[in-house]
Amino acid sequence: MRPSPTCWLPSLYRLSLGLVLLGWPLQADESGTRTALRVDPKRLRERIDRMAQIGGSTQGVTRLAFTEADLRGRAYVTRLMQEAGLEVRVDEAGNLSGLLQGGSPALAPIVLGSHTDTVPRAGVYDGVLGVMAAIECVQVLGENGIRTRHPLEVLVFANEEGGLTGSRALSGRLNSQALEESSRSGMSIREGIAALGGNAERISRVIRRPGEVKAYLELHIEQGGSLESEGTDIGIVEGFVGIRWWDVTVRGSANHAGTTPMHARRDALLAAARLVIAVNRAATSLPGRQVATVGRISAEPGAPNVIPGRVTLSLELRDLAKPKLDQVFREIRRQARLIGQETKTEIEFTEIDIGVEPTLTDPKLQEVIRQAAEALDLSYARMPSGAAHDAQNMAHVAPSALIFVPSVGGISHSPEEYTRPRDVANGANLLLQTLIRLDRQDSP
Amino acid sequence: MRPSPTCWLPSLYRLSLGLVLLGWPLQADESGTRTALRVDPKRLRERIDRMAQIGGSTQGVTRLAFTEADLRGRAYVTRLMQEAGLEVRVDEAGNLSGLLQGGSPALAPIVLGSHTDTVPRAGVYDGVLGVMAAIECVQVLGENGIRTRHPLEVLVFANEEGGLTGSRALSGRLNSQALEESSRSGMSIREGIAALGGNAERISRVIRRPGEVKAYLELHIEQGGSLESEGTDIGIVEGFVGIRWWDVTVRGSANHAGTTPMHARRDALLAAARLVIAVNRAATSLPGRQVATVGRISAEPGAPNVIPGRVTLSLELRDLAKPKLDQVFREIRRQARLIGQETKTEIEFTEIDIGVEPTLTDPKLQEVIRQAAEALDLSYARMPSGAAHDAQNMAHVAPSALIFVPSVGGISHSPEEYTRPRDVANGANLLLQTLIRLDRQDSP
Repeated sequence: MRPSPTCWLPSLYRLSLGLVLLGWPLQADESGTRTALRVDPKRLRERIDRMAQIGGSTQGVTRLAFTEADLRGRAYVTRLMQEAGLEVRVDEAGNLSGLLQGGSPALAPIVLGSHTDTVPRAGVYDGVLGVMAAIECVQVLGENGIRTRHPLEVLVFANEEGGLTGSRALSGRLNSQALEESSRSGMSIREGIAALGGNAERISRVIRRPGEVKAYLELHIEQGGSLESEGTDIGIVEGFVGIRWWDVTVRGSANHAGTTPMHARRDALLAAARLVIAVNRAATSLPGRQVATVGRISAEPGAPNVIPGRVTLSLELRDLAKPKLDQVFREIRRQARLIGQETKTEIEFTEIDIGVEPTLTDPKLQEVIRQAAEALDLSYARMPSGAAHDAQNMAHVAPSALIFVPSVGGISHSPEEYTRPRDVANGANLLLQTLIRLDRQDSP
Repeated sequence: MRPSPTCWLPSLYRLSLGLVLLGWPLQADESGTRTALRVDPKRLRERIDRMAQIGGSTQGVTRLAFTEADLRGRAYVTRLMQEAGLEVRVDEAGNLSGLLQGGSPALAPIVLGSHTDTVPRAGVYDGVLGVMAAIECVQVLGENGIRTRHPLEVLVFANEEGGLTGSRALSGRLNSQALEESSRSGMSIREGIAALGGNAERISRVIRRPGEVKAYLELHIEQGGSLESEGTDIGIVEGFVGIRWWDVTVRGSANHAGTTPMHARRDALLAAARLVIAVNRAATSLPGRQVATVGRISAEPGAPNVIPGRVTLSLELRDLAKPKLDQVFREIRRQARLIGQETKTEIEFTEIDIGVEPTLTDPKLQEVIRQAAEALDLSYARMPSGAAHDAQNMAHVAPSALIFVPSVGGISHSPEEYTRPRDVANGANLLLQTLIRLDRQDSP
């Protein structure tokens, strides 16, 4: 391991520290310094707060991808990246990429990333935390005169909230049809990419081949309430759940609610109600973290004085393991057959192919994160990510990891989204220490 | 009791029968003749079929109240009424009224009635059966030279399907607000009444005072499937069920379906599903014919990947006895409290005042019908009417009765609605014999 030969943005204090580190060989001391390195929590918080004002109102933060607010947010981030010494460009997919050369030019970059676009009336932390923490890591390394062996790249992915456009493009998973879909901005994805400075015509140029990225690391708020409710500092994400969707139709017989005795009814809603309960039981009666949700329901004809003849509802299953998804669905279908027989209704499942297979994160990377967390004296839990993230696409390109910090009440996509300053700092420090540990791997 | 002095529309055969009856006094013989009197089932069927062509298509029969098809239907009925010897007029509410003077001018009329308007894409029998059977009764009496002591009136009520306008007006239950409501024809009720030849400005003139009507009799298809499934010829309606409506709101917590573990959910739809089942149990666990229906449900925000935070649903209860309605609702509310506690949701009931109290038909009239059915060797069952009918309003003005005949499969308001010719004839003969028995009451 070599000492870092240069020091960007030197201050007098940083310079003196850098000079100490210039001793050669000083591996033990330098390693100790690196282990002791911490982000500037005040600066990090201030930047997150400043970002919240871009597109922010009393109704929350709205920086829909491709809109003027999104562009202003990216302009602010670009300035911060440049201040941290990163060379910034917009790639063909509209991703913001900031690159810092490493000490060993032949090595593939370690990539840190997340996104700055939001849903309508969003919170402050979703996406922004990961981007600001990544910039902070690069900046604090530079300020301490530490040059990593690997190049460092900070990626701000385009249109995460509207379909993970940027990371899908990087991993070669964005088909041409997706480019023509419309986004919440009113523009098509293709037009939106152009608005960001990309060029969808040449989007295949952004694809990263295996080996071109050493590792991808992302810090994100949990978006669930598990860490907060259990008082755990850090979530080490084991993988991204697979998602399966079905449209379910229950067919009974619509009839006059006044003239049809209870025993003569074929009430599709009564059958559907039993199915909703069976779905819940199928998911909760097995050990594990699988979830099953009925989020949408409608009864036809839908009048208070007509027995529903037809009910349609949605069914969603999520789990890290494909066999578990199969097992839960088999049990639901078995229960549906019984319910159908007992209520004289027909229950039909039509799967909608949404193409979200379970994706595991890299176990070796998880172990590096675990060791870094222990060294920082942070409690941690291994957990699945129930939501989709850019890291899910990046996992197809490179060893990838996702680190969660607690989100109070598990609230996200809402102005009430909140992560405590302590947890913001913990997450950023863990990202930094993981990066430093990773950089040491494969050392000559 | 007097022999009938005149004979309308005499045929040679009818005339000879009439001459026989002219003998004086011939009470026993004449009574025997009356008891033996039957409707002409072929003519009755032909008229019902002919009526089905007015507004009829392969899609069913559509004679929405106040429309051109409704007017053509009423024109046909007017001709038939006149042919039966009735003096026809349109009253201020748009009801068609056909009157035949009786032998004792001081007596109040016996009124037979129903309606000829339909819902969209309706069947053939709903309403029309009662009107055509009433005309047939008057016609067959006349053809047999029988003059009743009481005046006979055939009433074809305006806009039954759109809110029982005509019978509400007659019973003084139509408020001025109802006149301004719009009907399926596009016209307001007020405009529709004018289109029929009525005059809403003077609508209070149609109100019948207690004592002005001897009795109201209506023949109708059951609209449920009880009579057909039990092989019973006749339903003697004991009363019209009271109807109570509630809007029910279940409040949980909307959350991300991927990031919220099963145990941490406050799923409003899971609670609502349990409530739907509890509603069914509350109605079926007690003896009696009460019915409970959830016909409408919606979950918010209503996406497959979001746990429902709010579910709204309708609740309807119907029964002949008010205390039974209270008892069933108390049980539902008790179950809702338990469900709310167990699912960490709040369940709130808001009653909607629809003003449909239980209304009983006249027990003495029921007994006359029962005796007539026995004399005709027809099987019968006493039952509530779960649907609203003009007889329900007429019950507030005069002793009223409703006679049901079987409807195959309990289907109504559909082109598939069907009542067998045998049952059509049975119903009309029972109406005729009931009328004859009623006419004998209070005889001098």
